[in-house]
Amino acid sequence: MAPHPLTALSGEEFRAARDIVAKLFDSDVSLFFRCIFLQEPKKDELVPYLQAEHAGKLMDEIPRPPRRAKVQYDVIRGGKTPEYTQSVIDLKTGREIDRTAAAPQSQTSYTPDEFAIFQDACVASQMFKDAMAEFSLPKNFTVTIDPWPYGGPDADEGDIARLMQGLVFARDASKNNVDSNHYGYPIPIIPVMDVATRKILRIDRLATGGAGDGLAPHPRASEPKSLFVKNVSSEYIPELLEVPQREDLKPINITQPEGASFEIHPDNLVEWQKWRFRLGFTPREGAVLYDLCYDNRPVLYRLSYSELTVPYGDPRPPFHRKQAFDLGDGGFGRVANNFELGCDCLGAIHYFDALLADTEGNPTLAKAVVCLHEQDNGIGWKHTNFRTNRAVVTRLRELVVQCVVTLANYEYVFAYKLDTAGGITLETRATGIMSVVAVDEGKTESAYGAVVAPGVLAQNHQHIFAVRIDPAVDSYAEGDTRVVVEESVPVPLNPETNPYGNYYEIRKRAVDRASWIDAEPRLNRVIKFENRTKKNAMSGRNVGFKLTPSASQLLLADETSQVSKRAKYARHHVWITGHRDDELWAAGEYTNQSREEVGGVWDMVQRGDWFDDEREANGDGESGVVHGRKSSPVVWSVFGLTHNPRVEDWPVMPVEIHHLTIRPADFFTSNPALDMPTSKNKTSVIVPCCGGQETNGQNGGSGVNGVSKEGHRQTVQDAALTHLQGPGPDVPAEEAGAHTERRE
Amino acid sequence: MAPHPLTALSGEEFRAARDIVAKLFDSDVSLFFRCIFLQEPKKDELVPYLQAEHAGKLMDEIPRPPRRAKVQYDVIRGGKTPEYTQSVIDLKTGREIDRTAAAPQSQTSYTPDEFAIFQDACVASQMFKDAMAEFSLPKNFTVTIDPWPYGGPDADEGDIARLMQGLVFARDASKNNVDSNHYGYPIPIIPVMDVATRKILRIDRLATGGAGDGLAPHPRASEPKSLFVKNVSSEYIPELLEVPQREDLKPINITQPEGASFEIHPDNLVEWQKWRFRLGFTPREGAVLYDLCYDNRPVLYRLSYSELTVPYGDPRPPFHRKQAFDLGDGGFGRVANNFELGCDCLGAIHYFDALLADTEGNPTLAKAVVCLHEQDNGIGWKHTNFRTNRAVVTRLRELVVQCVVTLANYEYVFAYKLDTAGGITLETRATGIMSVVAVDEGKTESAYGAVVAPGVLAQNHQHIFAVRIDPAVDSYAEGDTRVVVEESVPVPLNPETNPYGNYYEIRKRAVDRASWIDAEPRLNRVIKFENRTKKNAMSGRNVGFKLTPSASQLLLADETSQVSKRAKYARHHVWITGHRDDELWAAGEYTNQSREEVGGVWDMVQRGDWFDDEREANGDGESGVVHGRKSSPVVWSVFGLTHNPRVEDWPVMPVEIHHLTIRPADFFTSNPALDMPTSKNKTSVIVPCCGGQETNGQNGGSGVNGVSKEGHRQTVQDAALTHLQGPGPDVPAEEAGAHTERRE
Repeated sequence: MAPHPLTALSGEEFRAARDIVAKLFDSDVSLFFRCIFLQEPKKDELVPYLQAEHAGKLMDEIPRPPRRAKVQYDVIRGGKTPEYTQSVIDLKTGREIDRTAAAPQSQTSYTPDEFAIFQDACVASQMFKDAMAEFSLPKNFTVTIDPWPYGGPDADEGDIARLMQGLVFARDASKNNVDSNHYGYPIPIIPVMDVATRKILRIDRLATGGAGDGLAPHPRASEPKSLFVKNVSSEYIPELLEVPQREDLKPINITQPEGASFEIHPDNLVEWQKWRFRLGFTPREGAVLYDLCYDNRPVLYRLSYSELTVPYGDPRPPFHRKQAFDLGDGGFGRVANNFELGCDCLGAIHYFDALLADTEGNPTLAKAVVCLHEQDNGIGWKHTNFRTNRAVVTRLRELVVQCVVTLANYEYVFAYKLDTAGGITLETRATGIMSVVAVDEGKTESAYGAVVAPGVLAQNHQHIFAVRIDPAVDSYAEGDTRVVVEESVPVPLNPETNPYGNYYEIRKRAVDRASWIDAEPRLNRVIKFENRTKKNAMSGRNVGFKLTPSASQLLLADETSQVSKRAKYARHHVWITGHRDDELWAAGEYTNQSREEVGGVWDMVQRGDWFDDEREANGDGESGVVHGRKSSPVVWSVFGLTHNPRVEDWPVMPVEIHHLTIRPADFFTSNPALDMPTSKNKTSVIVPCCGGQETNGQNGGSGVNGVSKEGHRQTVQDAALTHLQGPGPDVPAEEAGAHTERRE
Repeated sequence: MAPHPLTALSGEEFRAARDIVAKLFDSDVSLFFRCIFLQEPKKDELVPYLQAEHAGKLMDEIPRPPRRAKVQYDVIRGGKTPEYTQSVIDLKTGREIDRTAAAPQSQTSYTPDEFAIFQDACVASQMFKDAMAEFSLPKNFTVTIDPWPYGGPDADEGDIARLMQGLVFARDASKNNVDSNHYGYPIPIIPVMDVATRKILRIDRLATGGAGDGLAPHPRASEPKSLFVKNVSSEYIPELLEVPQREDLKPINITQPEGASFEIHPDNLVEWQKWRFRLGFTPREGAVLYDLCYDNRPVLYRLSYSELTVPYGDPRPPFHRKQAFDLGDGGFGRVANNFELGCDCLGAIHYFDALLADTEGNPTLAKAVVCLHEQDNGIGWKHTNFRTNRAVVTRLRELVVQCVVTLANYEYVFAYKLDTAGGITLETRATGIMSVVAVDEGKTESAYGAVVAPGVLAQNHQHIFAVRIDPAVDSYAEGDTRVVVEESVPVPLNPETNPYGNYYEIRKRAVDRASWIDAEPRLNRVIKFENRTKKNAMSGRNVGFKLTPSASQLLLADETSQVSKRAKYARHHVWITGHRDDELWAAGEYTNQSREEVGGVWDMVQRGDWFDDEREANGDGESGVVHGRKSSPVVWSVFGLTHNPRVEDWPVMPVEIHHLTIRPADFFTSNPALDMPTSKNKTSVIVPCCGGQETNGQNGGSGVNGVSKEGHRQTVQDAALTHLQGPGPDVPAEEAGAHTERRE
């Protein structure tokens, strides 16, 4: 049977696509392959298929959209600048059906292979050696370099080549451990390389001062400057820790003796507790959820992380160019960690593998890059009837789809969580090693970050994420889903509508046109995805889901700065744009060395799409020209962490956790978790006070009031053990004065 | 050995205090006991004790503060209004050392016994019966009444008695189940009772209209009105569910074969992973943490929930009086659920009991009202060295101190969570059954809430919590702890300090005077608790913790309304006030029937305390009179949920979760979780695709790209399975051009 249209390319398809592309070029042309992956069907091709699939048609009877591959590669013609090219290949016909070349000065993301050449290029460079000659390192220290995106070129740089910069560190090789932490030993130079020629073009000298020392680079010394004099260990790997690992943390085992509740079907179809989706994985995004349905009702057509920019707040040049776009410059899929059992998730876990391209276009296995497991998240719902003291309590269960990515020094943990109450949560954790630079030893104060160890400055920075949400609420039909902004607003006390002043109004506004809006928790602003026509049988409201946008700090950089212009998406919390196939990138496709966001959400809004027949497009400004068209809405949620480092974040930072929630809002006709089991878990045990033995009965409590061991009076019967005595038994209706009827 | 000064009263002490109070009054006086509990030592009595304790002095050699009990009771002199009285009893001398009586019109919280009389009073009331005669109920329906606080009296009510109102419901007794859900059958009247006389004073008739139907009560009909014609089941107990409980959710077992990592010592001392605290439990607050230390360094002197108000947004009288103060009108401790093993927490659990007073002042056992357990919260920190692909990953472990309270229809889950990275999180979950009222059957639209079932309107409302934080950062010495507001603010591009526009400034301001401040996530505003003199050895900054105030919606009611005046604390997110012993209540001590917040945070700020010697108090406004004094700062964090009901919240709502975080900020000299074990959990298993057998090895992954079952090429060696190839081995320093030194 043919694969599902959303199934990723098989190894065979992968190679076929590569071979087709290879044959398109003459033999004097070299190809440098970057990515090969499924070209997702266009939405209007795929929707009929999904509709038929959900209607229960047999999958081999449904006409399939053409199966296509996207191949991204550089075309290298001897001596010339490589041309970054994308081909779409029809896998059935074997033909190239589309080819695009990047505009000049657009740079695609770096591949691991490009990063890998940087250190050798430095070592081969006399310019680099001359710069290093300014420093004297302790005996047995080696030099190691972290390659970094170059960032946005300065205004006075003009057209530039594909560049890379590097943060230079030393490692204490006397420890005889290749995992000894080099980030504790920063060296204050940044070499800049031309990627095509592998030449080091210049060495940026860095400022190393403390508070009040200005923006200029450290002065050139007449004698080699001794670095790392106040040598402090910054190790994190267990065998090099100065303090041994704690031994008093007893294991918590999470087991599922009856197995997992989820099912993984062929073609990466996942089913769990009425949820159903297909898992995708792309080189740029990592894990993607497609066709997310609940009880066979669509909720989201596609859900993905779209971009993440990390600008640093240190004004001393060239640190203003420390601004990574971790999807556009790197790619989450390509830097996804390979999970190991018992480390990154606990319990009964399914791991997904993926294929990535090597430079020759061969598929390479990215093993266990996504994990999927269930977890318990505490009480799901509970009610205790105070009259009878009967408690009914259920748990909240979650299905977690998790990726961890490493971007040189730093890690992110991304999880899509679905829950038994119909909720969707995007959980983002930031961890790893902060990007640090040198500060003169002995200086502890800086306006630009925290000195986390002698000579080590962790600079203030932000992480600003964009999540792309393509909603399809209870229907895939074109035009059925709309976006509504809902707010709770105060109403002044007035005799007509608010005589006692307690009333507040819920205001709703349908978004009729591509636009942005910021989070406003003071107005309890939520973004609803609604089905335009289907009503909830109980409330009469449109069935929907609601996104609570995160009111986190937006981009701090001055709007006239290049940092801000490159990431216009980071200026607002929510963008609502008209759908276009392949338009997946909040900051545009080409972020690497960008001077400005091109083709990102800013431009999509400017395009002027509209969502509603009733609303005529008004044209774009004075020209009156309508560039947009009627489209279905896509929602982009932007959130971030302003990370002003703490010493506690060194040498590896404890996770900082962010939750973005999407919850049903009148999508169901009652609590969808009402049928959750209420059975008691039988493996829990009671730990008594003061070293007593564990039991599995209810007799191990200690008294907050110190009464457990004494024969205190229990003056009242069991009911009085509870907080409220019931107000007596119910009263027969007649006795209470009401009439009663014969109807049953 | 004498108990620790923070140990709750024993049953013996409890009875002794009661007996002492009983003897203070003549025999013609009746006493109605409300609460008996430990009178905590004054802070300046307790601090020297704690300092000695932490310095390792033997506890029986440390002079103890006097041990005292607080007894709260009504003094009833035949026929007169009961006088609400509080006595402080010295348990050693047996003497009353303080007595206060509430001001006229101040009402204390209701006891369960007071609530219990309400239904009988209704049934005995002809006025109630006459009102009920307007309605006709289906056969076999009974009547049941939820007692509620009366709320704030209207301006035109003048002085009023101690009142109670009731929400009236019917129950379908034909189901033969006392736990059948009566909230699905609301009857549109509210009886009002004089608590002292047990007389029903009046029956408020309720509006039952939909959108556009105005504010007036439902018209009096000539014929009895048939209720519940469109009878829909709103059951939540398993045996009455229309849909059976799901059976495909496999159990998750959480076990600790080596036992729990925490220790519970006598006198409710808890130790876990360098954390240490004493657990308290009071009738009004429920669980309280005292003397919270990390590694023997103080962090918080006391941590507690202080107040929770729940105002409803329905303007139709008398719904404007639906405004509960769940601590001040009720009391979390008195309505705490009795936990059952395997339901409310999983794993290895310790339960705490408490003593509460019955109306005669006898201790009654409140069993298992607090539970304590550990839980795993995912990845704690991780770093993968991209050069070697070595991942070091640890878990985040939490210790959870949890209470669940029931307030008639509604539940809250409160948890203090401590974690292995030095973090403190207050997790609040809202669940239970929404407070609903009648709406004419057939009407689905309302401006005041959601119709969640035919005839059932769940009104829009807010929950606004106040948490009280008494910080003591690394010292208990008077004056050592200060509060600092820190913000991250943009800086315009300028050639001197921000030539490229990427710089942002961190601004700090010490709070020198009692004041309030709102959350402002756009400025990344955090509230720091700092030690004024102790510096972090790495960063040179004051050691501290930071509270991230929650930017949730504040009270929506008009500021001129009584709803708002009663809960002025709910107008701002953070209050910083000068410490006074026994000043624990954000909305003041007497919230029940209050017309205005008295003695709450608003008044504490008005008092004009100051925190800093350098800052002279400026006097209060024009009078120039200084009422305040130099004090140590107490921080109150206010957060809330605006709950505009969804149909999904019916009949029992899935938890809505709120997190308030307090995190170390330069308190430690590195990540305090650096020594967390990195060992793999051995009980996790792999779930393969497509129904295969679980394994505990790494060979069950399925391919997102469909490759797991085929013999795809693994073109590159293992290292290429990862995202990044390293940039080659490190370079010896000399080879990189640097000098090296002889120092090792």
